[in-house]
Amino acid sequence: MAEQKRPFDVLNESKGKNILVELKNGKTISGKLIAFDPHINISMENAKEVSQSGETVREVGKLFIRGDMIISISPGE
Amino acid sequence: MAEQKRPFDVLNESKGKNILVELKNGKTISGKLIAFDPHINISMENAKEVSQSGETVREVGKLFIRGDMIISISPGE
Amino acid sequence: MAEQKRPFDVLNESKGKNILVELKNGKTISGKLIAFDPHINISMENAKEVSQSGETVREVGKLFIRGDMIISISPGE
Amino acid sequence: MAEQKRPFDVLNESKGKNILVELKNGKTISGKLIAFDPHINISMENAKEVSQSGETVREVGKLFIRGDMIISISPGE
Amino acid sequence: MAEQKRPFDVLNESKGKNILVELKNGKTISGKLIAFDPHINISMENAKEVSQSGETVREVGKLFIRGDMIISISPGE
Amino acid sequence: MAEQKRPFDVLNESKGKNILVELKNGKTISGKLIAFDPHINISMENAKEVSQSGETVREVGKLFIRGDMIISISPGE
Amino acid sequence: MAEQKRPFDVLNESKGKNILVELKNGKTISGKLIAFDPHINISMENAKEVSQSGETVREVGKLFIRGDMIISISPGE
Repeated sequence: MAEQKRPFDVLNESKGKNILVELKNGKTISGKLIAFDPHINISMENAKEVSQSGETVREVGKLFIRGDMIISISPGE
Repeated sequence: MAEQKRPFDVLNESKGKNILVELKNGKTISGKLIAFDPHINISMENAKEVSQSGETVREVGKLFIRGDMIISISPGE
Repeated sequence: MAEQKRPFDVLNESKGKNILVELKNGKTISGKLIAFDPHINISMENAKEVSQSGETVREVGKLFIRGDMIISISPGE
Repeated sequence: MAEQKRPFDVLNESKGKNILVELKNGKTISGKLIAFDPHINISMENAKEVSQSGETVREVGKLFIRGDMIISISPGE
Repeated sequence: MAEQKRPFDVLNESKGKNILVELKNGKTISGKLIAFDPHINISMENAKEVSQSGETVREVGKLFIRGDMIISISPGE
Repeated sequence: MAEQKRPFDVLNESKGKNILVELKNGKTISGKLIAFDPHINISMENAKEVSQSGETVREVGKLFIRGDMIISISPGE
Repeated sequence: MAEQKRPFDVLNESKGKNILVELKNGKTISGKLIAFDPHINISMENAKEVSQSGETVREVGKLFIRGDMIISISPGE
């Protein structure tokens, strides 16, 4: 029997890897996903704000993002 | 006796198939629906942002979308 | 003794019939109501976006709408 | 001992009578209150959108309004 | 031992008295507080919309206001 | 063992003292904190709206503020 | 077996240290994190509003921030 897939699978697979996070204020954050919880609160390392074209706007480092600000999360390269 | 229909039926039928997702920030995402949960958090594969006329604006690939950003989901062609 | 009326009665009576759905983004969707749940998540068939004057703007077909986007639902003709 | 009054009393007294409903999108709906629930979801009959000066803008008929769109409800004449 | 004070005390003391209610849409309502519940849903009598300078803009009468629209409530004169 | 600190400590220490409250509508309220609850609903006495530079814009007196309108609370001088 | 990481770890590690808090109204607060709770309500000491370039705009001192106003928290230097 096939295992039931869940939306959080893509976040679990991305732990320790680079992700792109789109925020509701129009900003995009790139960095390594360290942890997430059911509210989609996340913590990242080597986080940086990036422009639409992928260039670094601002270096942040460790970062906690409140889940309700997040639009989407995609695995980065 | 007729089986009770639920709104999530249309999402269950769309698993593994293409969907169009309208977001509250005005963007439209096209791609394959992998999973969803009761908050309408969804995960997709081959996701891409598309314009009103259906042209690809940006390739994304795997994508997690937070449910509270979603307006509507329709099965794609 | 009179039966207690509930707001969802008008939605139950509309199952399988045409409804007009007003959304918080200013759009109006017309189509057949298939199902709804207590969050007012709904699924529709033959859904189409219509203008204020009732003309079809866009054909959608099957559609899932997240309840928190809905302003109002009225039985259509 | 005086009976404890509750905010919903004014809605219970208005069942089957005309009410004016102010919505968060700036619109005002007039019509007969049929039912409400604890989320202030309401159903109406003979609903119509009215202008500030009370003139009918649009006839709606039966209407379900999601509670989170409602600012206020007042008994009509 | 001193009795524990609660924010709702000021609302309980205002029952049957005039209050000023500031709403999130920028409007101010003056009138007699009849009842409130834990969501700050309130019912009023002799309610009227007033301008910043305290002049009556519109007579309303009995009024139910949904709690999530309320910014603040102050006892009136 | 050190006692666990909680965010509400700063509010408990401020009871009966002057606080500055920043609201989501851009206004700042100064006055004595009387009580608060877990939703950050608060009641104040001698409340007044103050400008950025600290000048009184409007005297209010007793005031109930709904918690979801509050950005921050700081002890005043 | 590796210990499960949680998003709140970065906040726990920052207790008693400087943090940068981005708020939904576009402001940035710098200061020492004293405490936080599961809603991300936080209390700070030596808090000050800072500009994009890190200059102090306004000294605040002790500060309580309601969690739903917070976008992100990063450890400061």
